[in-house]
Amino acid sequence: MLGEILYEVRGPKTLFEMSWPEVEAALKNTDIVIVPVGSTEQHGTHLPLGSDTLQATDMAKMVIKQLGDEGVTLCAAPTIPFGVSHAHLKFPGTITVSSETLMRVITDVCRSLHIHGFRKFVLLLGHGGNLATLRLVASDLALILKDSKFIVPDWLPVMGARYPDVLKSSRPTDEHHSGEGETARQIYSTPALVSNNRGEPFYVPEELDPYAKKPYTGGVTIAESGVGMRERTPFGVMGDPSRATAETGAKLYKIITDWLCQVIRAELL
Amino acid sequence: MLGEILYEVRGPKTLFEMSWPEVEAALKNTDIVIVPVGSTEQHGTHLPLGSDTLQATDMAKMVIKQLGDEGVTLCAAPTIPFGVSHAHLKFPGTITVSSETLMRVITDVCRSLHIHGFRKFVLLLGHGGNLATLRLVASDLALILKDSKFIVPDWLPVMGARYPDVLKSSRPTDEHHSGEGETARQIYSTPALVSNNRGEPFYVPEELDPYAKKPYTGGVTIAESGVGMRERTPFGVMGDPSRATAETGAKLYKIITDWLCQVIRAELL
Amino acid sequence: MLGEILYEVRGPKTLFEMSWPEVEAALKNTDIVIVPVGSTEQHGTHLPLGSDTLQATDMAKMVIKQLGDEGVTLCAAPTIPFGVSHAHLKFPGTITVSSETLMRVITDVCRSLHIHGFRKFVLLLGHGGNLATLRLVASDLALILKDSKFIVPDWLPVMGARYPDVLKSSRPTDEHHSGEGETARQIYSTPALVSNNRGEPFYVPEELDPYAKKPYTGGVTIAESGVGMRERTPFGVMGDPSRATAETGAKLYKIITDWLCQVIRAELL
Amino acid sequence: MLGEILYEVRGPKTLFEMSWPEVEAALKNTDIVIVPVGSTEQHGTHLPLGSDTLQATDMAKMVIKQLGDEGVTLCAAPTIPFGVSHAHLKFPGTITVSSETLMRVITDVCRSLHIHGFRKFVLLLGHGGNLATLRLVASDLALILKDSKFIVPDWLPVMGARYPDVLKSSRPTDEHHSGEGETARQIYSTPALVSNNRGEPFYVPEELDPYAKKPYTGGVTIAESGVGMRERTPFGVMGDPSRATAETGAKLYKIITDWLCQVIRAELL
Amino acid sequence: MLGEILYEVRGPKTLFEMSWPEVEAALKNTDIVIVPVGSTEQHGTHLPLGSDTLQATDMAKMVIKQLGDEGVTLCAAPTIPFGVSHAHLKFPGTITVSSETLMRVITDVCRSLHIHGFRKFVLLLGHGGNLATLRLVASDLALILKDSKFIVPDWLPVMGARYPDVLKSSRPTDEHHSGEGETARQIYSTPALVSNNRGEPFYVPEELDPYAKKPYTGGVTIAESGVGMRERTPFGVMGDPSRATAETGAKLYKIITDWLCQVIRAELL
Amino acid sequence: MLGEILYEVRGPKTLFEMSWPEVEAALKNTDIVIVPVGSTEQHGTHLPLGSDTLQATDMAKMVIKQLGDEGVTLCAAPTIPFGVSHAHLKFPGTITVSSETLMRVITDVCRSLHIHGFRKFVLLLGHGGNLATLRLVASDLALILKDSKFIVPDWLPVMGARYPDVLKSSRPTDEHHSGEGETARQIYSTPALVSNNRGEPFYVPEELDPYAKKPYTGGVTIAESGVGMRERTPFGVMGDPSRATAETGAKLYKIITDWLCQVIRAELL
Repeated sequence: MLGEILYEVRGPKTLFEMSWPEVEAALKNTDIVIVPVGSTEQHGTHLPLGSDTLQATDMAKMVIKQLGDEGVTLCAAPTIPFGVSHAHLKFPGTITVSSETLMRVITDVCRSLHIHGFRKFVLLLGHGGNLATLRLVASDLALILKDSKFIVPDWLPVMGARYPDVLKSSRPTDEHHSGEGETARQIYSTPALVSNNRGEPFYVPEELDPYAKKPYTGGVTIAESGVGMRERTPFGVMGDPSRATAETGAKLYKIITDWLCQVIRAELL
Repeated sequence: MLGEILYEVRGPKTLFEMSWPEVEAALKNTDIVIVPVGSTEQHGTHLPLGSDTLQATDMAKMVIKQLGDEGVTLCAAPTIPFGVSHAHLKFPGTITVSSETLMRVITDVCRSLHIHGFRKFVLLLGHGGNLATLRLVASDLALILKDSKFIVPDWLPVMGARYPDVLKSSRPTDEHHSGEGETARQIYSTPALVSNNRGEPFYVPEELDPYAKKPYTGGVTIAESGVGMRERTPFGVMGDPSRATAETGAKLYKIITDWLCQVIRAELL
Repeated sequence: MLGEILYEVRGPKTLFEMSWPEVEAALKNTDIVIVPVGSTEQHGTHLPLGSDTLQATDMAKMVIKQLGDEGVTLCAAPTIPFGVSHAHLKFPGTITVSSETLMRVITDVCRSLHIHGFRKFVLLLGHGGNLATLRLVASDLALILKDSKFIVPDWLPVMGARYPDVLKSSRPTDEHHSGEGETARQIYSTPALVSNNRGEPFYVPEELDPYAKKPYTGGVTIAESGVGMRERTPFGVMGDPSRATAETGAKLYKIITDWLCQVIRAELL
Repeated sequence: MLGEILYEVRGPKTLFEMSWPEVEAALKNTDIVIVPVGSTEQHGTHLPLGSDTLQATDMAKMVIKQLGDEGVTLCAAPTIPFGVSHAHLKFPGTITVSSETLMRVITDVCRSLHIHGFRKFVLLLGHGGNLATLRLVASDLALILKDSKFIVPDWLPVMGARYPDVLKSSRPTDEHHSGEGETARQIYSTPALVSNNRGEPFYVPEELDPYAKKPYTGGVTIAESGVGMRERTPFGVMGDPSRATAETGAKLYKIITDWLCQVIRAELL
Repeated sequence: MLGEILYEVRGPKTLFEMSWPEVEAALKNTDIVIVPVGSTEQHGTHLPLGSDTLQATDMAKMVIKQLGDEGVTLCAAPTIPFGVSHAHLKFPGTITVSSETLMRVITDVCRSLHIHGFRKFVLLLGHGGNLATLRLVASDLALILKDSKFIVPDWLPVMGARYPDVLKSSRPTDEHHSGEGETARQIYSTPALVSNNRGEPFYVPEELDPYAKKPYTGGVTIAESGVGMRERTPFGVMGDPSRATAETGAKLYKIITDWLCQVIRAELL
Repeated sequence: MLGEILYEVRGPKTLFEMSWPEVEAALKNTDIVIVPVGSTEQHGTHLPLGSDTLQATDMAKMVIKQLGDEGVTLCAAPTIPFGVSHAHLKFPGTITVSSETLMRVITDVCRSLHIHGFRKFVLLLGHGGNLATLRLVASDLALILKDSKFIVPDWLPVMGARYPDVLKSSRPTDEHHSGEGETARQIYSTPALVSNNRGEPFYVPEELDPYAKKPYTGGVTIAESGVGMRERTPFGVMGDPSRATAETGAKLYKIITDWLCQVIRAELL
C-alpha cells in the first residue's frame, strides 16, 4: 500500500529506532544525549523541505558513530522537525513555529530525558534560524533541571571557514542556504531526495545580501518586517547548487563531525 | 560516516520529502492536508520508541496513495514525533509533552499550512493517548483559521472490531499496546526495526486492565496518579506479539486505510 | 426587593449549600467529590440558558441521594456554569469560554478540593461540548494531584441508547439538543422555567445533521469554521420538545443516575 | 430522585433563567449587563459556602427590579461562583481560584456578552477579596472590547457607613465576615440555608484584626504569608451573627440597591 | 562624549547605587525592602516623561533617610520605570505595559530579593494607575514567597487631603496629574528637568472630570474604551502648574514621607 | 529630605528626561529609537549593582550626541534596569528576571514606541547575558510590528579586540566582568559611584574560566546547573580593576560609540 523506496535511513540508531531495553542499556554507559533540532522549510527547487531535519539527524548519528568507535556511548533524541522559519513562509510548504512553542517542545523533551537519567545535553543546530532560541532554552533549562549541563555548539562558522578549501564554487564565501555546501551534504546522505535539475546559481545582490561584507566589523543581528528569503532570492537558493557532489558533502560532514566530537570531548567527557 | 541501512522510507512523499515547487503544484489540485501526530514512547522490548510516529506517517502515505490512484490529490505534513505519553514514562526513553505543548505545536503547524492555502485538515492519530488533545485543538482551530474544516477520525475502534477476524492471537480482543496487531503493522512496513525476540505473550490481569469488560456499559475516561503502563505490564506489552506477521499487518493497514479514505471522501471531497 | 419565586432548589446539598463544618463532617466519611460542569447556552425558545448547569447540578444531587440511601457519602462542588459553547454563539445570551479557560477553572477548583482531602473526582458532564476538555484536564490533574483518581463518565450514549424505549417522539433517535429528552428532564426538575409554548418539532436536514447516519462506521470529530447551531436549526432545537413530560424526564434521570452510581461503585468504592 | 426543597430562587430572571428570545428582546431595550462575581468560601458554622454567590445574584436581581420599576431594562449574567479566597483555605470546602484564572473567566464571559451587543458592564462584587481583580480586568477589557464601558462599584464602605444605624450589635463597626450584617442579608433571602445555631459572637483580638483602627489615617493593603482567616477567627466569624434578623437584612439590601441604582443612573444611563 | 549635567541624583543609595558587600551589610540589619514602581508617561508640556519614576525613587530615599535617622535600616530596589499607562498613550513618548507584564516584573524582582533574605516588601506607588496591579501582585506573592509580608500604602488620598492647606492654587481639590502639587514635587528634587514655561492652568470640564464630585458617595472604578487623558485635557495637565514652588514640593514630600514612615513603623517594625 | 549628591546625570536627554512635546518634535526628524537594556547585578566590591544600566544609558546618550553632532536625530527609551542575571544570584542584591519576562517588557515598550511612530529599533546591550534574549525578541517583533526594523549590535567582541591596545592590565584578554575595562568605563561617567578600594586582581583559574582558550575553535554556548559567578570568582571580579582610569574608560566608550554609530549609519540611515 506504500510506493517505491524514497531513501534509506542509516545507523547508528537514535532513540527513535531503539527499544526501551536498548535505551536502558545505553544509560548504564552514558548520561549524554544529543537533541537535534531541524526545520520544515523551503530549500530551493531541488532539495526537500525536511533538509535541515535530515541533516541534523545525520550529524547526530555521525557523532554517535565517531565517538562510539572510540568506545564512548551517547544517545540522540528524535529530531524536532519544526523550527523558527518565519523568513521562508512565502515559499509554499514552509512551516514555522514561534520561538515560544519551540522552547516549550525542547523543554518537555529534555525534562523527559532528564527523568530517565540524562544529565548532559547537546542541543544540535540543524537550522541557523534556531540558534538564539537554543541558547536561551539551554540557559533556562540548566536552572530547572538538577545537575544538568547544556551545550549549544554553533558549527556554522567552523564549517564556513573551510568553504574556500572544500567547495568548487567560484564564490565559496557566498554559498549559503541551499547552495553548494548544503546541497552537497544532502547528496551525500540521501541522493534520491535531491533533484538533478538544480537550476542556475543565484547570488543575492549585495544590497539585499544579509551575508554581504559590512562597512563595519563585528556582528549585528537584523530583523525587518516583511523582508524574508523571497525578497532576496526568487527560488530560495543562495549559491551554486549545480557544483555540489557527494564527495564535497562527505568532506563537509567530516569537518562538522570532527569539530562536534572535539567539543563534546572537551566539555562533556 | 554513517552506519548500515536501518530501514527504507517509501513513497508517496509527504511535505517532508517534497520541494517547494512540488507543494506549489499540489496546491493547485487540493486544499486537503493530513497532519499526522505520533509519539516517542516505549513499545515493548521488540519495537522502536518511534513506532507510533512511523505508523502515523505510513497511514498518511497509504491514504495519499489510495486516493491518488483514484485521481484525488492530498498532502501530508511531517509527522509530529512527540505526544502525550505520561503513562509510559517509567520505561526508559519515553518522551512526553504536555497537552498544552502539543496543542501549540499543532496550532503553529496548521497556521503555517493555512497560509499556503490548505483549508481542510485531517488530524491523524498515531497514538491513542493524543485523541482528546486532537479533538480539542480541532475545535479551537476551526474558530481561528478562516474557512477551515478539521476532522479527527478515530480509527482505533474500527480496526479493533476486526481483530477477531484478522489476528492469530487466542485472545484477539485483548491485543492492545505492542501486541499482535501493532507489531504486525510495524513488521509490514519496517521489518528491520522489529526484534525477532518478541518475548512471551502478556495479558494484563483483569483487575489492572483498562480494557477489561466493565460491570457497566458505555465509556468512562479514567486517570489515576502514579498508575501507568509499568504497573500493568512489566515489559510494556499488552498481548501476544509473537504471532505477528507482515501479512496480518498488511490486512490491518488495508482496513484502516480503506476507512480513512471513506471518511475523507464523505467529509472533505 | 426580589420578585416572585422562579423555581425551587431541592436537596441533597452540594458544597454550595453546606457550611464548612458540614464539609468537615462529610470528609470523615468520603474522599469522593463530583465536579459538575454546565454551560450558559441557548436551549431553544422554551428552555433557559442555564439548562445544562441545572441538569448537571441535579444529576450530582441524584447520585448523592441514591448512593446516600445505600449508606455511601459523597460530595459535589458548585457547578461550573460556563462551558465551551462556541457553536451556539449566534443565539443571543450564549456565553462561551475557551477550553484553556475552562481547564484552568477546573484545575483551580480540584486543587482546592484536594487540599481539603478529596482524592477521587468525578468530572460530571452537563454539556456534550465539554467532553474532550474534561478528559484532557482529568489526565493532566491525575499527574499533578498526589494520590488522585479522576473519572469522566460519558452518560450521553448510555441515555441515547434508551431513547427509543422511553421517548414519545416519532423520531426518537433524532432527539438531541433541546429536543424531547432534554426538555423532559428540565420539566421534571424545574417546570416553572420551561415555556409551555414549545414550538414545532424541528429535525435538522440530513445534509446538515451532525448526528446523521454516516456512510462509514465509527467516530469522527468534525469542526468547521462558521458552521454552528444557527446554520442547522433556526430556533436552536433538534427534535420535538412538544412531547416532553415530567414522567419521561424522571425515567431518563433514573437511567442516567443508575448508570453513574454503577460506574462510581465500580471505579471509586 | 431529589430531596426536599432547600430554598427558592426568586425573580427577576438573569440570563441563567432566560431563554434566548427573552435575551434578544431585552437587547432591544438595553446594552447594560451586570456580571456578578461571588465565591465559594467558608462563612462561619451557620452560613453556606455559597453565601457570596447567592448575595451577588440577589443584589443583581434587586437592581434589575428597582430600575425595571422605573422603566429601565438591564440584564445580568449568571454569577461566577468562584473567587480569590486564598485566606479562607484552612476551612474545609473553601475553593479558591488564582486572580489570573478569575480574570480569564471574566474576560471570556464579557467577550461573549459583547458579541451579543452589550456595551456597558457592571462588575458586581460579591466578595471583597475580588475587588482588585475586578478593577484590573475592567481596565484591561475597556481597551479590548470596542465601545465598552466598565464600572466596578465598591458598595462595601457605603453599607459599612450605615452599620451603626442599622445593626443591633453592640460593636457595629466590628461586624464583618459572617457577622450580623452578612448573616442578616442571608436570612432575608434564603432563611432555610441559615443555621439557627449561630454560636457566640467573636471579635478578632485587636492585634490580629485587619479592620482594627490604625495609628495612621488612609489605606494600606496588607498581605502576609500564612496569615489567613483561621489565624484570626477559630470558626470563621467576625462579629455577632446571633443578632441578625430578616428585617435588618432587608434594610441593608435596600441601602446597597439604592446606591447601586444611583451609580448606574449616574454613570450608565 | 556626554553633554552637560541634566540633574543630580542624591542619596541615600538604593540597591542601584550599592555594591553587593553594601547590600550584604544592610541585610544584617534589615529584612525590609521598598520596591518603587514608576511609569514613563506624559506629564504635561513642562515635566519629563520619567516624573513618576523620579518621584517614586525620591520617596523611597526620603523614607530610608528618615527611618535611618531613627536608627532603622531598610533598602530599596531600583525603581521599575514602566507602568500601566494606557490612558496616556495619545501623547507622544508615553510607554505602557500590560498589568500582566508589570506583575511578572514585580514577581521576578521580589523573588530575587527574597532569595537574598528580604521578607517585608513595601510596594511603593509612583503612579496611581498601578494601584490595583500592586494590590493584586502583593496578594499573590504573599502566598508564594515563604514568610513574606507585603504592604501597598496608598499615599494619594493622604496627600490630597492636605492640598487645601498647602497648595496656592485657587482650586486645590482640582489639582491632579501634572498640576500644582506634582509639579512642585518635581521642582523640589530636579528643578532643572522642569520647564519654566508651564502654560495656562487647565481644569477638566466637569462632565469629563473623573475626579468631579459624584451624585453618589463612595468609590466606583470606571474604565471606558477610547476615553483617556487626551480627551480630557489637551496638554496633559489637570490643574495649575504655574503656581508650583520648591517650598510647596518640600511640604508635600514631608507629608508623604511622614505618613509612609508611620505606616512602616506600625506594620513592619 | 534627601542626602548629598551621589552622581550627576548628563545629557543628551532620553525619553526619560523629555516632555511629550519634545518627543513630538523629535518624531518629525526621526523614526529611530534606541532601547537600552541593563541589569541589576553584582559588579565586584567596588562597582554599583546598576553598572550595566548606567553604561547602557550612557552609550545610548553618546550615540545620540555623536550622531546629533552630524545633524542626525534619534531618541532613546528609558533603560530597562533588569536583565537575565541568574549566574550572579549568589551575590547579595542581584536581581534576575526570566528571559520570558524580559521579552514581555521589551515587547510592551517597543509596541508603545511603535504607536508613536518609531519604526527602527536599536536593542542596545548593557549586559552580555541578555544577548540571546534581545536577538529573539528582535526577530519576533519585526514580524508583529508593521514596517519595523530591529538591530541588535553586539559591541562586546569589537571592544574586546581593542583591549590589548588600550588596557594597562598585564593580562588584557582576561579582563572581563568588573575588571579593568568595565571599571574604567564606570569611572569615566560616574566616578563617585566607584569605590577607591578595588581589591586585588583576580583571574579565574583556567579550569573554571568560561573565557579560557578552548582546545577547539568556534563558539559553544554552555549552561550548567549551579555553576555561576560565585563558583568562579569569590568577589565577583574577573580581572584587575585597580588599573582602571577615567582616560581608559573614555577610550573604550569612544571605540564602542564610534562602532555603534557606524552600524546605525550603515543599517538605519
